[in-house]
Parts: sequence; C-alpha cells; structure tokens
Amino acid sequence: MPDTARTRFRLDGSRSEAPLRFVLVATQIAGPAVVRYVLEVEPVASAPAEQLVATAGPNVRRYLTGDL
Amino acid sequence: MPDTARTRFRLDGSRSEAPLRFVLVATQIAGPAVVRYVLEVEPVASAPAEQLVATAGPNVRRYLTGDL
Repeated sequence: MPDTARTRFRLDGSRSEAPLRFVLVATQIAGPAVVRYVLEVEPVASAPAEQLVATAGPNVRRYLTGDL
Repeated sequence: MPDTARTRFRLDGSRSEAPLRFVLVATQIAGPAVVRYVLEVEPVASAPAEQLVATAGPNVRRYLTGDL
C-alpha cells in the first residue's frame, strides 16, 4: 500500500488516533525548529534543511502510517 | 549487536557524526516538550509520559544507532 493510501487508512480507519498522529508529527517540526532557530545548537543550526527533512522523514512516516 | 554496543560503535567509529546524533536526539526531547508544556496541544499535553517516550523511542534509537 503506498504511503498516501496507508495514511488515509490510518487516519480514517482509526479516527480516535488522528489527532494524536497529527500532533506527534508537529513534534517533529517543533523539535528541529527550536533546536535550529531558537537554541541555535550546532550542527543542526547550520545543517542543510534537506538533511534535517531526510532525518525526520522516517519519524513522520511512522507517526502517520505506523503502529503507535 | 546490542543497542548500547551499537551506539558506542556509531559514536566512536564515526566521530564527526557524534555531535549531529546527539543534537538530533535533543530534537526528540525538545519537540514533545514544546508541544506538551509550552503550546499545550492536546492530546499530547495530557498523554501519559510513558506513551510519549514509547512513541519517540524508535526515533532516538535510529538517531543513535541507525544510518543518518
């Protein structure tokens, strides 16, 4: 099943989990954002954005489509 | 290889990655902390701490021991 279909299934099929999944995804945005832009901790502060997206990607995928 | 040994290997064996790995782990603490205690977004704000630890655990393990 492709990720988009799996995401739709997860969010439709178990509606009570949808808010949790979305807010867990928010933690994957808030965490790097705080470390990079507020605390400005290296090497994340100056890492290429693409690298941070690539490292957080599997977490976001699991939060949307995986078992919690 | 147990996780502790794999972590040691990753952090010793590729020293240039160690700071990045540690700060990536920090993103997994900062993200849920901000969402839970600063923004207070439900359902993470009132989720059991154990659940948040369990959901972030695989991310932390990958950041310490996995491929980046």
